[in-house]
Amino acid sequence: MWAILSIRVENKPGILFKVTNLFRARNFNIDSISVGVMENPEFSKMTITTVGTEKQIAQIVKQLDKMIDTIEVKRLDEKESVYKELVLFRIKSNGESDSTEISKLADTYGAKIHNGQEGSLIAELTSTPDKIKAFEELIKPFGILDSARTGVTAL
Amino acid sequence: MWAILSIRVENKPGILFKVTNLFRARNFNIDSISVGVMENPEFSKMTITTVGTEKQIAQIVKQLDKMIDTIEVKRLDEKESVYKELVLFRIKSNGESDSTEISKLADTYGAKIHNGQEGSLIAELTSTPDKIKAFEELIKPFGILDSARTGVTAL
Repeated sequence: MWAILSIRVENKPGILFKVTNLFRARNFNIDSISVGVMENPEFSKMTITTVGTEKQIAQIVKQLDKMIDTIEVKRLDEKESVYKELVLFRIKSNGESDSTEISKLADTYGAKIHNGQEGSLIAELTSTPDKIKAFEELIKPFGILDSARTGVTAL
Repeated sequence: MWAILSIRVENKPGILFKVTNLFRARNFNIDSISVGVMENPEFSKMTITTVGTEKQIAQIVKQLDKMIDTIEVKRLDEKESVYKELVLFRIKSNGESDSTEISKLADTYGAKIHNGQEGSLIAELTSTPDKIKAFEELIKPFGILDSARTGVTAL
């Protein structure tokens, strides 16, 4: 099962190291991670998505909670949270007809289009992981030259 | 100076640990980090923003490049790249007049508004770090109850 963990930590060097090491030591894969400083720059919030059994997830939450530098560890409910990811795709675009078609797809998904280097467009999409997946499938035939994604963040 | 590093790595447990450890060992702070799997799930791309002198940044790029699991390390040019961050803010909203004002601000910045728990709204904004900062300042008087951000991603 998929889980979204929201972890409030002290913003000091080494904390990301400790948290990722905890996952590593348990041979637990991190699906996506995002880290940002909070309003009070003494703190950061990490959002980690991972996949495991109910028992494994409960265990990792407990272990994270025990760490000295973690202030709060929450497992977010998929139904009651806002969870989104930002993805950038560099898409191959041969001429105007490609560009028009890509723009149409982008409109449908609420993606923004930026001009890329010659022969490419950059699509910027903030959405849920499933919608991003669907958009990706639709643009794949044009050729995805490069991509970058943030990992999920959630409240 | 501010630097955006784009690092393509093999997607295996422990790699995030190694990269963050490299920064830690040099007492180099990570401003924001985002990690996402790529089209080919064998690879991940990390985007790290950091602040340092020209020399320090050149050194960290060189060290990252030397690591076995890094496939490509690029320092992105601020002027020629698309770099964006996604932020969620939970904003206190006392009644309709607050809610109208917040929605107006959100429109100006291209933020989406979601219903939060009673007495709050969630604003979702994908933008550049400076515009996010400006929006944050404007909504601060209402009361920011919580926030979550992804860190910058870039192409």
